[in-house]
Amino acid sequence: MIKEQYPSKLLEDAVEAIRSLPGVGKRSALRLALHLLRQPQEHVHHFTESINRLRDEVRYCSNCMMISDGEECSICRDHSRDRRTICVVESVRDVMSIENTGQYHGLYHVLGGIISPINGIGPSDLTIRELTERLERLTAESSDPVEVILALSGDVEGETTAFYIYRQISKFGVTVTSLARGLGFGDDLEYADELTLGRSITGRQPFHP
Amino acid sequence: MIKEQYPSKLLEDAVEAIRSLPGVGKRSALRLALHLLRQPQEHVHHFTESINRLRDEVRYCSNCMMISDGEECSICRDHSRDRRTICVVESVRDVMSIENTGQYHGLYHVLGGIISPINGIGPSDLTIRELTERLERLTAESSDPVEVILALSGDVEGETTAFYIYRQISKFGVTVTSLARGLGFGDDLEYADELTLGRSITGRQPFHP
Repeated sequence: MIKEQYPSKLLEDAVEAIRSLPGVGKRSALRLALHLLRQPQEHVHHFTESINRLRDEVRYCSNCMMISDGEECSICRDHSRDRRTICVVESVRDVMSIENTGQYHGLYHVLGGIISPINGIGPSDLTIRELTERLERLTAESSDPVEVILALSGDVEGETTAFYIYRQISKFGVTVTSLARGLGFGDDLEYADELTLGRSITGRQPFHP
Repeated sequence: MIKEQYPSKLLEDAVEAIRSLPGVGKRSALRLALHLLRQPQEHVHHFTESINRLRDEVRYCSNCMMISDGEECSICRDHSRDRRTICVVESVRDVMSIENTGQYHGLYHVLGGIISPINGIGPSDLTIRELTERLERLTAESSDPVEVILALSGDVEGETTAFYIYRQISKFGVTVTSLARGLGFGDDLEYADELTLGRSITGRQPFHP
């Protein structure tokens, strides 16, 4: 029965391709392939064309390594932003998440991953050299203070990466900070893990009634 | 903040295109777009190419309307199958499901949908005319019995479609059957709905110990 499973090689190829996406199983892939088959041809061509264009034409900002349509990204081009505060993040998605808070007005530096020996990702696979070069330029330009925010995840890999970067950049005399950790808004004390609750207590803040 | 949400128009276009897939939300679409961006270029091209080829080159079997790479599908081309039993189903996926059971050795007829006034789908949008022409040919060819299995879903739309087809094909003097309904294997009596349990009782079978 296995070889007869797909009525068409074309369908089988498309299902296999769609299945290669993360989190998409065989059944969903078939459902998506049959959905695309029912769409107007120009709709399907627009779909594939926009994916091809993304892959073929996207660029990375020469300053912060963020996805960009040009030489510099829209954040680095925005001169109303604080150019001497750099928020170091793992990925493009983290930049988008922080931008959505509307609380940050500095620039970014996208590492493009996190140090993870288990996945074979070392410091040289990330944009850490670009960060040190950038800090070298910034501190040479002016003696105004520079702040680097290490906005990495709180797991072992995130902590390792933060520590590695800290050692690389401490020579520039910049202020290095990291994200506040604690209970989320609306979180219930009862259900918080001990580590988070512990950090919330040691990092307690003055009460503003 | 809304206009700044995407760092790149190319990314935004790709996310919008991926979001048009059923069951894919904004966050998943972004995740998939960024995943594709990290893949080798030839991998992405293979992905989009296989979808384009499916949409542009797939054909439908001239006999049963199943997806096919040629004039006739592999099931209709298989002359070891019973050519006078036709299983009428809504979609390509139903054919694949029934084929996977390994229990059916006749041919199929794919309606390409189900009668649904609420979705604006009438009998003329389905391949019912092709079915009647097929039965006309089959019954003219030989006086051997022909069986049509109406393998449609058990909801109102399925029942309506089955009844409509039944009226269209009864003039050919073919045997018309429908799928057995009842408790599924391993189903618990306690949790079965009344309709299903009722059908299981009225349609009870001789016990084979």
